[in-house]
Amino acid sequence: MRQQFQEELNEIREQLVEMTRLVGSAMTRASTALLDADVTLAESVIAQDQEVDRIHHDLEEKAVDLLARQQPVATDLRLVVTSLRMSADLERMGDLARHLAKIARLRFPDSAVPAGLRGTIVEMSGVATRMVAKTGDVIATRDVQKAREHERDDDAMDQLHRGLFAALLDDKRAHGIEEAIDVTLIGRYYERYADHAVSVARRLVYLVTGEYATEDGLSKAL
Amino acid sequence: MRQQFQEELNEIREQLVEMTRLVGSAMTRASTALLDADVTLAESVIAQDQEVDRIHHDLEEKAVDLLARQQPVATDLRLVVTSLRMSADLERMGDLARHLAKIARLRFPDSAVPAGLRGTIVEMSGVATRMVAKTGDVIATRDVQKAREHERDDDAMDQLHRGLFAALLDDKRAHGIEEAIDVTLIGRYYERYADHAVSVARRLVYLVTGEYATEDGLSKAL
Repeated sequence: MRQQFQEELNEIREQLVEMTRLVGSAMTRASTALLDADVTLAESVIAQDQEVDRIHHDLEEKAVDLLARQQPVATDLRLVVTSLRMSADLERMGDLARHLAKIARLRFPDSAVPAGLRGTIVEMSGVATRMVAKTGDVIATRDVQKAREHERDDDAMDQLHRGLFAALLDDKRAHGIEEAIDVTLIGRYYERYADHAVSVARRLVYLVTGEYATEDGLSKAL
Repeated sequence: MRQQFQEELNEIREQLVEMTRLVGSAMTRASTALLDADVTLAESVIAQDQEVDRIHHDLEEKAVDLLARQQPVATDLRLVVTSLRMSADLERMGDLARHLAKIARLRFPDSAVPAGLRGTIVEMSGVATRMVAKTGDVIATRDVQKAREHERDDDAMDQLHRGLFAALLDDKRAHGIEEAIDVTLIGRYYERYADHAVSVARRLVYLVTGEYATEDGLSKAL
């Protein structure tokens, strides 16, 4: 019974790691689609989000089934409940990459990113991709130290996000209303993607140490 | 044992209904704060979101404790897991109302909503408030029919959201970049608030009927 439980937990963990791989790839490709106005790449990101949804749904069924059959308590119970939450975060990260791809498709053959803001978007994409790769490692290895590094990455993302608004406002005549709408939504999607990556890491830290990563994470860490 | 289980489930349900009341009130007040540039009201929304977070955290602890002690299976198990998810949706709705209040505070003593778009924001606020009130009823009564009405409300919200962008773009010279950024974020927050209300209703429908409300809700309904 105990051994089977561990095997099933491992399967769930592998599915979570696979989700980080898929939503990481979606983020990289969505960013390229945005920057290069590549509509084929955008379409592929939109289509492949279904695979993330499928794994999320399968993981949920598996976790609820595991709770019913094995009736875990204490740490084991929290591990299963936390996995459900991590899966929901990762599914949402897939949605956000898909949203970016949809903006790329909407503006094709133009790029939704104004020339002067390309550098910031490249950096945001870099931070997001680094965060999700780290999230995969953190789930696979339960490395609490690495999980805590997420907070720094998230600060970097927030700073880039503020920079994006500042750049839009800096030279008002350089940007049109449509560009402002696109860039505001794009910035928001990157920022939320990073928030969810942080959320996954905080849940892991709480699971391993019993400590909330930050005060702010209190209600989100369980 | 069984009776105690039912009592604890009822407590969780009452907490969920209380959360709908709080995040509904937060939405109404945040909308007024935005439209009337009322910074005191905005501050109160921001401060009171902690109460929603507190209930969410308490409900989570209670639900995990219930799973550990009572070891429910089948429908009872799904009910507890679904309550955890509904609580997460409602907590997020509170965050979104707080985000609206923060924009109101940021722009004070001005209103963040341009004169020509006030009507649309008033309508979005009305739809959001109606949806959350209905969500409370749906949780309290498990009225599946009412839960399904949410889809129509959500369509209305999406239409208002598209109208907001169209209005911004319609007379480009009437709006500045800062206004465009604010209105884009405001519109997004209302839309996401409605999405989460729909998500709660879909989970309820699935719980009661075993049917997903829509194909799209498949991975989100559990």
